[in-house]
Amino acid sequence: MSRPVAVAPDTRPNMHEAMARAVTTGGATLVDTADAEGLIWADPGRPEAFPEVIATTTRLEWIQLPYAGIEPFAHHLNDRWTWTCGKGVYAPAVAETVLAMILSGQKHLHGYARASSWSGPVGRVLANSRVTVLGGGGITAHLLPLLAPFECDVTVIRRSDEPFLGADRTIPVTRLHEVLPLTDVLVLALALTDETVGIISAAELTALPEHAWLVNVARGGHVVTDDLVAALAAGSIAGAALDVTNPEPLPDGHPLWSAANCLITPHIANTPEMGLELLEPFVAENVRRFCVGEQLLAPVNVALGY
Amino acid sequence: MSRPVAVAPDTRPNMHEAMARAVTTGGATLVDTADAEGLIWADPGRPEAFPEVIATTTRLEWIQLPYAGIEPFAHHLNDRWTWTCGKGVYAPAVAETVLAMILSGQKHLHGYARASSWSGPVGRVLANSRVTVLGGGGITAHLLPLLAPFECDVTVIRRSDEPFLGADRTIPVTRLHEVLPLTDVLVLALALTDETVGIISAAELTALPEHAWLVNVARGGHVVTDDLVAALAAGSIAGAALDVTNPEPLPDGHPLWSAANCLITPHIANTPEMGLELLEPFVAENVRRFCVGEQLLAPVNVALGY
Repeated sequence: MSRPVAVAPDTRPNMHEAMARAVTTGGATLVDTADAEGLIWADPGRPEAFPEVIATTTRLEWIQLPYAGIEPFAHHLNDRWTWTCGKGVYAPAVAETVLAMILSGQKHLHGYARASSWSGPVGRVLANSRVTVLGGGGITAHLLPLLAPFECDVTVIRRSDEPFLGADRTIPVTRLHEVLPLTDVLVLALALTDETVGIISAAELTALPEHAWLVNVARGGHVVTDDLVAALAAGSIAGAALDVTNPEPLPDGHPLWSAANCLITPHIANTPEMGLELLEPFVAENVRRFCVGEQLLAPVNVALGY
Repeated sequence: MSRPVAVAPDTRPNMHEAMARAVTTGGATLVDTADAEGLIWADPGRPEAFPEVIATTTRLEWIQLPYAGIEPFAHHLNDRWTWTCGKGVYAPAVAETVLAMILSGQKHLHGYARASSWSGPVGRVLANSRVTVLGGGGITAHLLPLLAPFECDVTVIRRSDEPFLGADRTIPVTRLHEVLPLTDVLVLALALTDETVGIISAAELTALPEHAWLVNVARGGHVVTDDLVAALAAGSIAGAALDVTNPEPLPDGHPLWSAANCLITPHIANTPEMGLELLEPFVAENVRRFCVGEQLLAPVNVALGY
């Protein structure tokens, strides 16, 4: 059964177009908000436009938000409608960026990218390396299959020691220091909480082997930046690839910008373009479910606020 | 049965030592060239020494070359002896570098590596991309499993249209131009022969979509360099990652060094360290086969020149 679904606001043309396609692909009829039973929110940057858009609706039942984390919309949540979000949608893109960063480190691509002259061979084979991933969420779940063909020895560190699919072992964060000396690549892909702020500081960096790489796609606050700067300068680890920094954005002139063994990407593990590519089929699937009355993906718990 | 095998020349001590170990491990007796029935060539950089070394042999049957691509030795090939090479030996290391280069291109890492300031989001998702690989040898065989988790649509182009394991389709090189417009990433991993010199020139680069990346880990001579420089400058492709160039080494000041959308690595897809590690057990196995009369690995087709 086709149902009327609207896409709003129209302030981001690319996104509006992609979401409109998703509505049609999902089997719904694209309508104005006044006639809509479902609404796809199509500009993550404009939560403040919500009251005005919503004022025009009369038959609304369901709102699809584009976010993985919905904090910008949290104050608009209420029990009048069913809310869904983009939880888990972007993890495949972030996992790709993690593997890109790992391989870039192993093959010295950051160094070669900066060269303007033919130089000597640097680089390691990733196959059979020991990879430790801090965090057992969606990014890790999507990363491990990408790593599988390299036959790495993978340790997942999480709050519990419940086994993680694809990991050679799963250990609780209390045993982090046992694993660090046996780690060739350390990936940070965990949530930032009071317990995980500064979880990687001088002691942890010193415990890693000198050939180890740090990859951070979680939050800049997980790493004590000054300790990382010192470790990179001292060569106590081989390098760091950071998609997130503290402070963020990293200010011009910060020592990390000029560290030879540091690659910084500006929080691009998923870009709006990538995001749209992933969000479109996801929203199409939720539209399909809405039309046929199946359970929606990524529901927001209004009481808990996520 | 043990047979007499020599290792020459002795101009690269590390390599001579590793190959001498391989001879012994393989069950042969290490002898001087004058007494040798087999010869392991132990300096890739010195093909010009070949006539002098070979002049001392009297009972020679088999020559093992250390190369994956044997062009430096091509003019020495003849039907007097059985020739084998290092075809496929370095493929696992090279395949890793190919994936590193592909992901680096998709995630704009070469650009971010050159930045000293926080910038905007650039980057694509590799998953579900259309990857075309020119060449159906060992690199391709090792690359496709690494690509498998990305669920790319993979076309292998080779001389025949014999199916290639892991490829969605295999087509003959005569149909290259049909595939180019449907290619997001073009990987060159074929042998350099008279037919493949300059196989990627202006016409092929123009046929690729504007978002396409070229990755070359084969030989610089496959690409008409001036045409690539022009295509990169015009933005008719999105970028190129080159482990091999023509000329090679790429001279200082060459326009490719300053192209914003070009990543150059100095022929490091396998480093000598990685290479020897991979070559030694391979040569030991060929020595064993030579001693017991089994079919040798990586035979050179003297007529085809690879």
